[in-house]
Amino acid sequence: MTQRISGVLSPVVTPFNADYTPDAGRFARQCRWLLANGVGLAVFGTNSEANSLAVPERMELLEQLVAAGVDPARMMPGTGACAFTDTVRLTAHAVKLGCAGVLMLPPFYYKGVSDEGLYRSYSEIVQRVGDPRLRVYLYHIPPVAQVGISLALIERLLKDYPGIVAGVKDSSGDWNNTQAMLERFAPQGFDVFAGSETFLLANLRGGGRGCISATANVNPAAIAALHRQWQGADADALQAGLDRIRAIFARQPMIPALKHAIAHWSGDDRWRTVRPPLVELAPAQAASLLAELEAAGFSMPGLGS
Amino acid sequence: MTQRISGVLSPVVTPFNADYTPDAGRFARQCRWLLANGVGLAVFGTNSEANSLAVPERMELLEQLVAAGVDPARMMPGTGACAFTDTVRLTAHAVKLGCAGVLMLPPFYYKGVSDEGLYRSYSEIVQRVGDPRLRVYLYHIPPVAQVGISLALIERLLKDYPGIVAGVKDSSGDWNNTQAMLERFAPQGFDVFAGSETFLLANLRGGGRGCISATANVNPAAIAALHRQWQGADADALQAGLDRIRAIFARQPMIPALKHAIAHWSGDDRWRTVRPPLVELAPAQAASLLAELEAAGFSMPGLGS
Repeated sequence: MTQRISGVLSPVVTPFNADYTPDAGRFARQCRWLLANGVGLAVFGTNSEANSLAVPERMELLEQLVAAGVDPARMMPGTGACAFTDTVRLTAHAVKLGCAGVLMLPPFYYKGVSDEGLYRSYSEIVQRVGDPRLRVYLYHIPPVAQVGISLALIERLLKDYPGIVAGVKDSSGDWNNTQAMLERFAPQGFDVFAGSETFLLANLRGGGRGCISATANVNPAAIAALHRQWQGADADALQAGLDRIRAIFARQPMIPALKHAIAHWSGDDRWRTVRPPLVELAPAQAASLLAELEAAGFSMPGLGS
Repeated sequence: MTQRISGVLSPVVTPFNADYTPDAGRFARQCRWLLANGVGLAVFGTNSEANSLAVPERMELLEQLVAAGVDPARMMPGTGACAFTDTVRLTAHAVKLGCAGVLMLPPFYYKGVSDEGLYRSYSEIVQRVGDPRLRVYLYHIPPVAQVGISLALIERLLKDYPGIVAGVKDSSGDWNNTQAMLERFAPQGFDVFAGSETFLLANLRGGGRGCISATANVNPAAIAALHRQWQGADADALQAGLDRIRAIFARQPMIPALKHAIAHWSGDDRWRTVRPPLVELAPAQAASLLAELEAAGFSMPGLGS
């Protein structure tokens, strides 16, 4: 078995053309820039607008990324959809392409579903994919999906699919929940990723493996530096520096803000395009974002080169 | 222009085989039974588990239904997905097959999205489908989708796409909202469907066109009778009778309860199967449902014959 993916991953924002088609060339360049800055590729995450892409669009884009020479061993594509048949298709495809793992949302249309129903969903998917190389990272993001992954569900899945069910991304924003996952499951080799760099240091100190964070799209080198140096004397200072930048982005709608910053520092205005139902930043939001980032001494070196 | 669809529609429950594949033959028979009982076909609704089906599964099943001779002029398939590219594909396909209209969820993964973003989504879809036969029924179901359709959004869409944007299904459960839609938009030829028969009489009295209701799957003839006789002297008594049956189903998880009743009265146990993340009724729930229905004198005549 190859070594599991760990560290800092970015839910890579997806570049669109004016007609909303994905731009595979720009996507590959962005992924290379992130890798060069020490960050892995959680492509097709929430911040990637993956759920605004059709299944064939996602499959084609992943194939183009691999064909462009971007290393699938550094990828953890999102594959969870409302229909388990879609999730099976996306997951089998990602495994076949050699991806290190997949980040799997629970089915999120029906609300108030039972752990039994979610167990059946994950179980059916694992069995249908039927590939020992599969590594599933459960995606707990109740503020968006509104359907969460309980500790009891993790326990049952880990028991029945050890090795395959490899970890979790906890985007609950609730440190107590992350801590409970670390205490109960990390000793069994279950890899806990914090849902943002806000909890990166705490997660690493608690036995977690890293973070998968929106702002790793724009501040990758500094976040990766904390991951490398978390046992150093200046770890808390590094964490505080990350928090300052994160807070600036978090004052705006996150995905349009990430794309606006990339457009600004790459000099490529096409990056501002988001698919409906999202909307790009309004001029006042954009001005405020850039003014705050510049005042903080923030920039994105090497972008667009 | 042909006459618009109206009256009582059923979000037809989807029959699955043991391996969770849809059973097209059983689906066509169920649709014929509903039509014979005076109810139209809002196939691929929430109660159809449509969001648990992949796009190609939905397209194939719709084609099989039309090929089996079920009249597309009596159909309003659900086509709204998270990715507008999926919605365009499903919608264009339904229009091409001759469906009377489509019931269109807003994109529902991202929460807290703006009316501007939802307007762009619907607008993009209408323009890309680009077919004057298209009739869009907006699907407002905030308890499930968590993304709703405001009065301001309806106003803007109606202004820009008159005739194409044809109506709404209001599953908010909030009569004040339905009433506001009726008052503001029904006079402009906007067809308001209540989200359940609970509000059927009130909706018809207020100028609405009917209802699209889960329990039209199991109690079609009685609901259709109220639609025909709503101006009669016994309308309130008919409404009260519908409410009694609805309440029995509403005490259980709705979709598994509908399927359990169909399995029971058709004598075909395969009907109990739901796709994950849903779970069929537990034995105690099933016993309670059937006991209450039998005590109310309920049955499903002609089913499975």
